[in-house]
Amino acid sequence: MEYSQRIARVQAHLRRKKIDAFLVSQPENRRYLSGFRGGDHGIAETSGVLLVPARGSVRLLTDFRYKLQAELEVPWAEVIVYPKGLLFLLGELLSDLSVANVAFESHYTLHSFAEKMTAKLGKKGISTLPTENIVETMRQIKDEEEIELIRRSVRLNEEVFLEIYGSLADYQSEIDIALAIEAAMRRRGAEGASFSTIVASGDNGALPHAVPCPLPITRDGSLTIDMGLVLDGYCSDMTRNCVPGKATDRYLELHRLVRKAQQAGMAAVRAGIRGCDADRAARTIIAEAGYGEYFGHSLGHGVGLAVHEEPRLSIRNKKQLKAGMVVTVEPGIYIPGWGGIRLENMVVVREDGCENLNSDTTWLDI
Amino acid sequence: MEYSQRIARVQAHLRRKKIDAFLVSQPENRRYLSGFRGGDHGIAETSGVLLVPARGSVRLLTDFRYKLQAELEVPWAEVIVYPKGLLFLLGELLSDLSVANVAFESHYTLHSFAEKMTAKLGKKGISTLPTENIVETMRQIKDEEEIELIRRSVRLNEEVFLEIYGSLADYQSEIDIALAIEAAMRRRGAEGASFSTIVASGDNGALPHAVPCPLPITRDGSLTIDMGLVLDGYCSDMTRNCVPGKATDRYLELHRLVRKAQQAGMAAVRAGIRGCDADRAARTIIAEAGYGEYFGHSLGHGVGLAVHEEPRLSIRNKKQLKAGMVVTVEPGIYIPGWGGIRLENMVVVREDGCENLNSDTTWLDI
Repeated sequence: MEYSQRIARVQAHLRRKKIDAFLVSQPENRRYLSGFRGGDHGIAETSGVLLVPARGSVRLLTDFRYKLQAELEVPWAEVIVYPKGLLFLLGELLSDLSVANVAFESHYTLHSFAEKMTAKLGKKGISTLPTENIVETMRQIKDEEEIELIRRSVRLNEEVFLEIYGSLADYQSEIDIALAIEAAMRRRGAEGASFSTIVASGDNGALPHAVPCPLPITRDGSLTIDMGLVLDGYCSDMTRNCVPGKATDRYLELHRLVRKAQQAGMAAVRAGIRGCDADRAARTIIAEAGYGEYFGHSLGHGVGLAVHEEPRLSIRNKKQLKAGMVVTVEPGIYIPGWGGIRLENMVVVREDGCENLNSDTTWLDI
Repeated sequence: MEYSQRIARVQAHLRRKKIDAFLVSQPENRRYLSGFRGGDHGIAETSGVLLVPARGSVRLLTDFRYKLQAELEVPWAEVIVYPKGLLFLLGELLSDLSVANVAFESHYTLHSFAEKMTAKLGKKGISTLPTENIVETMRQIKDEEEIELIRRSVRLNEEVFLEIYGSLADYQSEIDIALAIEAAMRRRGAEGASFSTIVASGDNGALPHAVPCPLPITRDGSLTIDMGLVLDGYCSDMTRNCVPGKATDRYLELHRLVRKAQQAGMAAVRAGIRGCDADRAARTIIAEAGYGEYFGHSLGHGVGLAVHEEPRLSIRNKKQLKAGMVVTVEPGIYIPGWGGIRLENMVVVREDGCENLNSDTTWLDI
């Protein structure tokens, strides 16, 4: 991993912007720049913050609980423990480093923390600068090494899906299936699921973010499985839809419609097209068939160290896609009282089109 | 659940403080006041916000994906979907409600969002007021109904522990044990683990927040299992330490020392004592035995809808504990290169002492 190159790019940015130091609190940004894997218990209980000065060496600031892990995972950085909390350490540390201003990630810093930090550092003559998406912007474009890691994550995810799909009849409930999937992920070496596995049967499929329930699955209704894992830090995300028993004609018709929309979306994705145009390519198919109101979310999202990241394939994203971005293409139709169908693949944006990272075709050719 | 009573308490607080409306974004606060269980993908991707006016009825603001769930779980509140994001909805909605100022949770609102909201609402003549811990302060004191829910969560957690502990020899690695624990939790009806289960064997035990690894566990070293689950929204949290094979004399000595510290901590907890005093009672035992430097975290934390909440049993908490608070008592000793021992129970603070919610005594009587 080329952490030093990534740090150097951030430092060049800081110097251009006349920023003396930069606090990286967002967990995936921290990992992207350092390899530190410490897990946060939510934003209010961070496992550490990376301090990147415009010149010189990086410090990883953490608390006692993560000290050993930080030293093991980031041997090239100085690990500094804050016994009384980050705020108490920062003032002295930044003064020692002769920092006159420090940037922080406004989009991953609590309002209350920012206020306290600004007051505390202000007393030492240090100003705070809210910034947004410095590292996220770098992360959007993956290099080939990262794409290979994502490819492996997708492949492992498909292996897990096929293992469980091959023995669907063994499971009674949505929870049974979700548990089997998440256990298989970790047994096969994943760090874990990249999000809570969604298994939604029958009516439940009408909730795009359904929570698996312990009731028996509906054999003759739609079954949505939306799953992803984290492998070496990189996420995968895939949705398949099937009927464990006998599919109705309506199901088959809608499934083909969603698949057609997905293919139109994938055909539209290439460098230079806007996110909204890719969304429109798929949405038009569903709208023209009369189901526009049942496709209430956007077509896709970026995937990398985070399972949901920029860019979005949505009507609101007027920016052009660039080569090296990795996005999902996942149209869906959700009908309250009937169920839902969503199909999701991950693709790499290339100059002349897109590379489909998924090879599994379960139920895609019906 | 007495959501209406809780809402009424919040509304009375708002009127006293001359606040017209209050946006509740913190997930456990939202659930405490409404019962809405929508899961956030981190703070940047919320499943909804509760709008509590100083007078009148509550609105639940969410996006398309959570609409059905919100309507099912919070049938008594109006559910409003924001198709273009919360910021676009808020201005009009608050204007319609003739709100002149709106409070937000500064400790669970991103700095960047607060800045954008303040600018956007300011154009409509609406001011924003950062607040902290209005709902958290209410949540610290549990009523007997909540304590019973926590008791059930603790009991189920112990049942899961005993199931897996009884078949420890069947498992090879830390990950195997952690997976078996988390699967058993959900099979037995838990919503899930309240945090990533920690299984730390041998050296790995020296990391208080160790991540389970796929290597075989060390049969003759210490094994730390720190686990908790969520049942009907309420969390449990328990740590046990044992040696799967043969324990050394040193292990037994240190285990007894940690247990003695835990008992001293539990003996100190009662209404009126300060959080720091409870911490000191346990810490003194470990320090006097010469291991003070190896007990680097605080003695305990509150548990309720969140697995880590106020109050803390730490040297920094000078506030008195109150009856109805629920806290962990979890001293530990962590020796790099050797391993670690932590023992954790949950107790209810009572007027005349504390009620130990745990009944499992595995390895506690050695």
